[in-house]
Amino acid sequence: MQREEKHKFKKISDEIIRAIQTGKYLPGEKIPSENEIISQYNVSNTTARKVLLAIELNGLARRIKGKGTFVLNRTEDRHLVRTLGSIADTRIGFNEKLKAEGFEPKNIILEKTILNDGISSEINGKHYIIQGPVLKVHQLRYANDLIMKDETKYISLTLCPKINLLPPEASHYKAYETKYQLGKLHIIQTMGADIFKPDDERNNFGTAAIIPVFVLDSAIFTLQEKVVELERSYYRGDKYRFAINAQEY
Amino acid sequence: MQREEKHKFKKISDEIIRAIQTGKYLPGEKIPSENEIISQYNVSNTTARKVLLAIELNGLARRIKGKGTFVLNRTEDRHLVRTLGSIADTRIGFNEKLKAEGFEPKNIILEKTILNDGISSEINGKHYIIQGPVLKVHQLRYANDLIMKDETKYISLTLCPKINLLPPEASHYKAYETKYQLGKLHIIQTMGADIFKPDDERNNFGTAAIIPVFVLDSAIFTLQEKVVELERSYYRGDKYRFAINAQEY
Repeated sequence: MQREEKHKFKKISDEIIRAIQTGKYLPGEKIPSENEIISQYNVSNTTARKVLLAIELNGLARRIKGKGTFVLNRTEDRHLVRTLGSIADTRIGFNEKLKAEGFEPKNIILEKTILNDGISSEINGKHYIIQGPVLKVHQLRYANDLIMKDETKYISLTLCPKINLLPPEASHYKAYETKYQLGKLHIIQTMGADIFKPDDERNNFGTAAIIPVFVLDSAIFTLQEKVVELERSYYRGDKYRFAINAQEY
Repeated sequence: MQREEKHKFKKISDEIIRAIQTGKYLPGEKIPSENEIISQYNVSNTTARKVLLAIELNGLARRIKGKGTFVLNRTEDRHLVRTLGSIADTRIGFNEKLKAEGFEPKNIILEKTILNDGISSEINGKHYIIQGPVLKVHQLRYANDLIMKDETKYISLTLCPKINLLPPEASHYKAYETKYQLGKLHIIQTMGADIFKPDDERNNFGTAAIIPVFVLDSAIFTLQEKVVELERSYYRGDKYRFAINAQEY
């Protein structure tokens, strides 16, 4: 490396590392790509590559082939942060998001059945109903070897025929938008808190201690108020944090 | 009452009661006023008044003088529902919202001091700092005789001079907007879950049992990223539920 490139290498690495440390780039978010570094800082591709490698070696980010370099979750307590009320975040599948943060996702399906009778749920005082047939999927979702979320979804097979054939790693939400062309969608969610004791029959987390849990109820429906999906899930309260942004317009 | 007015009285009452029962009007929300009923259904003011009285006598709503008639919280477990990410909801003060739902609000201030040193908080990986002087207000918030929220707020006295003179029932947020003319505001919040044991030193709820709590961290800042307010609060997890709405545009 020439002296000037060396100087630039140091400057760019420091800048990006500082941006990660101050939270400008959050866990799971992309840092600039090789090409972006080249054009933004006017450096050679060798220097750009070395910058990304240095950041990776620092343990701050991880390159995923063909996708980009993503900031790892390094918070001391390793809480996962999820943004509520964001459609953009909803589109990203559960597993995809975990991978970008440096975790190894895994699912275990406890139940996958077709209910002919339909299903209903009360959320925030309103009743949401899906007529049968309905696909029920109950699965445990892991990050590395820890169960993080116990998820049960009910999906309308009338609105989404054959959605039971969707591969498990795919985002249901993306399928509603693209494969099933359901148009603009609304999501309503409520978040409750509860305590799971080890012997609680709802407790599939396998924890020996009492843990706090978030209880999520949600409904996704079309502009014509047809309900596409109902969900009841439990998140480990000691592992998750939910973020909300609001802004005046 | 004439026969036709009697018939209309029955029709309108049934319609509004049904709207409350199906959740079209949620706890804390206003039902139509006397004048709105008169113009909407083309009835006399006697009939409109009787409709509102009938709904009130049914225990479904409560009239607050000069404000309107509000749907009461009648859910079996009396969970309070608050909407996250809604500026409109933030504008409504804590106490005002409780009153509209049929509760008697009360505050007890544990600490109210001016810090000369400033304060900082990390929310979702970013640092938010208020330079001194800062007003610190730590208070317990009651619904009827139950402590629902343990709230600590830090407010910039540089951006909001003399805000310590604001009456306790006033909405801080409204003051930022109107009295202090801080322009458009952003809010970022994270919601965590935890467990409070009776002897936990953070536990000011006075409960004999272990309870789940929501842990709220929030920052309110201006478009110029000046931090107006930092908050760390605990909500009783067995008494609250948080709602989130998202919509594709």
